[in-house]
Amino acid sequence: MKYSALDEDYAERIQDSFKKQGLMKTINARLVKVEPGEVHIEFPFSEAITQQHGFVHAGILATVLDNACGYAAGTLMSPEMEVLTVEYKINFLSPAKGEEFIALGRVVKPGRTITVCSGEVMVKEKTGYKQLVVMQSSMMAVPGQALPGK
Amino acid sequence: MKYSALDEDYAERIQDSFKKQGLMKTINARLVKVEPGEVHIEFPFSEAITQQHGFVHAGILATVLDNACGYAAGTLMSPEMEVLTVEYKINFLSPAKGEEFIALGRVVKPGRTITVCSGEVMVKEKTGYKQLVVMQSSMMAVPGQALPGK
Amino acid sequence: MKYSALDEDYAERIQDSFKKQGLMKTINARLVKVEPGEVHIEFPFSEAITQQHGFVHAGILATVLDNACGYAAGTLMSPEMEVLTVEYKINFLSPAKGEEFIALGRVVKPGRTITVCSGEVMVKEKTGYKQLVVMQSSMMAVPGQALPGK
Amino acid sequence: MKYSALDEDYAERIQDSFKKQGLMKTINARLVKVEPGEVHIEFPFSEAITQQHGFVHAGILATVLDNACGYAAGTLMSPEMEVLTVEYKINFLSPAKGEEFIALGRVVKPGRTITVCSGEVMVKEKTGYKQLVVMQSSMMAVPGQALPGK
Repeated sequence: MKYSALDEDYAERIQDSFKKQGLMKTINARLVKVEPGEVHIEFPFSEAITQQHGFVHAGILATVLDNACGYAAGTLMSPEMEVLTVEYKINFLSPAKGEEFIALGRVVKPGRTITVCSGEVMVKEKTGYKQLVVMQSSMMAVPGQALPGK
Repeated sequence: MKYSALDEDYAERIQDSFKKQGLMKTINARLVKVEPGEVHIEFPFSEAITQQHGFVHAGILATVLDNACGYAAGTLMSPEMEVLTVEYKINFLSPAKGEEFIALGRVVKPGRTITVCSGEVMVKEKTGYKQLVVMQSSMMAVPGQALPGK
Repeated sequence: MKYSALDEDYAERIQDSFKKQGLMKTINARLVKVEPGEVHIEFPFSEAITQQHGFVHAGILATVLDNACGYAAGTLMSPEMEVLTVEYKINFLSPAKGEEFIALGRVVKPGRTITVCSGEVMVKEKTGYKQLVVMQSSMMAVPGQALPGK
Repeated sequence: MKYSALDEDYAERIQDSFKKQGLMKTINARLVKVEPGEVHIEFPFSEAITQQHGFVHAGILATVLDNACGYAAGTLMSPEMEVLTVEYKINFLSPAKGEEFIALGRVVKPGRTITVCSGEVMVKEKTGYKQLVVMQSSMMAVPGQALPGK
């Protein structure tokens, strides 16, 4: 493992936050891996999240991957901080044709204020996984009580 | 009007495509403006699209704005072409606190292959509109029959 | 003027910093406008900065524009802070054919930690200016003494 | 080797193009690796390319890395095509403190029109290499005769 978390409860923190996301419920997303600096989220195809050709909307891939990257950054932050996405950049490599998808978010460089992440979404195919999108993003640590809604 | 469409039916084409997006139905998005080089989409707050603090998920803002930009590019393409998002970059300026949102996509530079777009999402506030995100993106024109699912 | 600077000496600070950039000397760049939230830099064509077809290298456009955006952000920061570029995204619209170029950096959203900027580089043509690149970037305010080299 | 070049002369083509870049001469950059889908460029510190704190200007890192990515894409294209950078996104991880730098560009997904690349610049340190920037970019293949200056 490349990184170490600052507290023992990092995985629990991430899971609690994930459960509060209405959107993740809407799309039946599951947090399948939470390790220091790396988070994986799986989600299935559904009609409710398609674009005009019947595939999963690229925006949903971006949304789930943004979450995976944000939580990957969050695993390395101190418990009283929250993660805000400052920005991300995403390239679309192939249409999201398939039934089961996995978003992998990883920390490239942790920082006290800014953590840089990268990630990818893959689709399960018979012979393995196919890369659909790649992302490069900046996450900011902010004191939890500074966020609106708190 | 800065740009001219190549065909008379550009708005109809965009509307037909928009209606086929399951995700736009899921979030109750409405196409409120389709002009050559510019498209606006409105959508309301709903529990189904929230992040962990109860606001609209940033990914939904990105998704709708990506659509607005893609359709803005599409208004200037010939009818037999379809629009693919090559990539986008998005900066998040403020949390998506509010009830009614509007995504504005505009063409920066049309091209035979690549069209560069920019856009923003704003939230309606009592005294006007507040900018929540800004996006800069690249759209590609591809012959419709070359797309998977056709 | 949309923004106000925090101190009277903002323009002097920017000019002092600009003069220390060896690269800006190398390419004969001139700071032609420094206002709160907006900075313009002009520079000429030269053989020393060309790409393989004899035009100005796209990377030089990006470099000067990154400077213009960074200094635009710097005009709104308190004097003891320095600006670091967290990241930028740039789209290339046309080859940099021409003799005189101008980079315009503007603040989109100032922030205590992160300031979001956008900008463009244009080339002077007989009938006006032509847009060559557009950029969207994130700048971070850091205490000057925290920087390496200080 | 993950990819195969379409022609035997790919490395020669890249070297010829590299030699024509005035900017690469100006900064004493050297093409040190040209393989299908991967290109490395080394360059030294010099006063002529510094920013205001005396380190190599971030824009130079971006410029060289953009070149490395573009040439990496070029190795997989047919000989009559040229590479244009559509856009790139770069994150800055650490200041460019040091004497010897290396830019590594790699193809993530080759395509007939658009090739997606990623890359990084590292600085040589006593104990190894330190990552300074990461980039994600889109390159376009265009027929050589369609380019201005030809």
